[in-house]
Amino acid sequence: MATRTENLMDWLRDAYAMEQQAETMLKGQSSRLEHYPLLKARIDQHLEETLGQQAQVKACIERLGESTSVAKELLGKVAAVGQAAGGALMTDEVVKGAVASYAFENTEAGLYTVIIEAASIAGDLETKQVCEAILKEELAMAQWLFEHLPAVTRAFMERSETPGETARR
Amino acid sequence: MATRTENLMDWLRDAYAMEQQAETMLKGQSSRLEHYPLLKARIDQHLEETLGQQAQVKACIERLGESTSVAKELLGKVAAVGQAAGGALMTDEVVKGAVASYAFENTEAGLYTVIIEAASIAGDLETKQVCEAILKEELAMAQWLFEHLPAVTRAFMERSETPGETARR
Repeated sequence: MATRTENLMDWLRDAYAMEQQAETMLKGQSSRLEHYPLLKARIDQHLEETLGQQAQVKACIERLGESTSVAKELLGKVAAVGQAAGGALMTDEVVKGAVASYAFENTEAGLYTVIIEAASIAGDLETKQVCEAILKEELAMAQWLFEHLPAVTRAFMERSETPGETARR
Repeated sequence: MATRTENLMDWLRDAYAMEQQAETMLKGQSSRLEHYPLLKARIDQHLEETLGQQAQVKACIERLGESTSVAKELLGKVAAVGQAAGGALMTDEVVKGAVASYAFENTEAGLYTVIIEAASIAGDLETKQVCEAILKEELAMAQWLFEHLPAVTRAFMERSETPGETARR
């Protein structure tokens, strides 16, 4: 058994873990990308958003009475959902990286959809509103990636056929 | 350097690996779920679709001249993208499982979007058409999961508060 707030807190911790992981991965992707300036710029924009989301989710956790240091310790065994979606970004190939980023943003979007419902049931309207705003940013990033996958694929394949060019990143 | 067809084949192999992984995970989820009949039914439906997708992707790989036994050996080191998105489904908690399934379907959708563009560039219109049909199924499953996440969350939280009830699956 678990109370409404305990369930809400559990998913908020997952979200916080994912946002920390997102920061690491977006920074890594941005620093590796050399030949895909549009993708790099969008990743940098979302990195800024991610830092804001981290702070907001942390504030929700603290408002529910859990200290952030406890939340930070819990990150050692990063949430299964986040770890899984994130592992994909270990690739340095731009096309698979973009697919994995798309998967990661959608994982976050799914998790915030859960949290919005849970916060509503638990009567935590501030968390609900915060996560509705974050959800919009995640869905916008996911949509952007989905729309740009064909262009990234095309650019990759063109570079890939050209002697002396590096296509991978 | 890599030719158009080599790049296309690389992503088709990833797709084949993901479809095999999808079969394993959907079967596992379906067999574990006890208290979420609607979700279980949709998973069973998508399992059937997945078996068809597997066969279709395999046919594309073989048509491009690679034997399936070679393709099967390659699955030992399952594609990074698939492995990552799939690992999340190891959880037996229904809400996180549904979020992870949503992430997995979107990973597949992203990958097929790449393959559709690659097949178009490589002039392989049969692969393009096959993957357009598969993409529709993946997006439909993703959309269904996204729309049902709040209901699954609500049912989980209600069971979770009820003494003697099992909420997790």
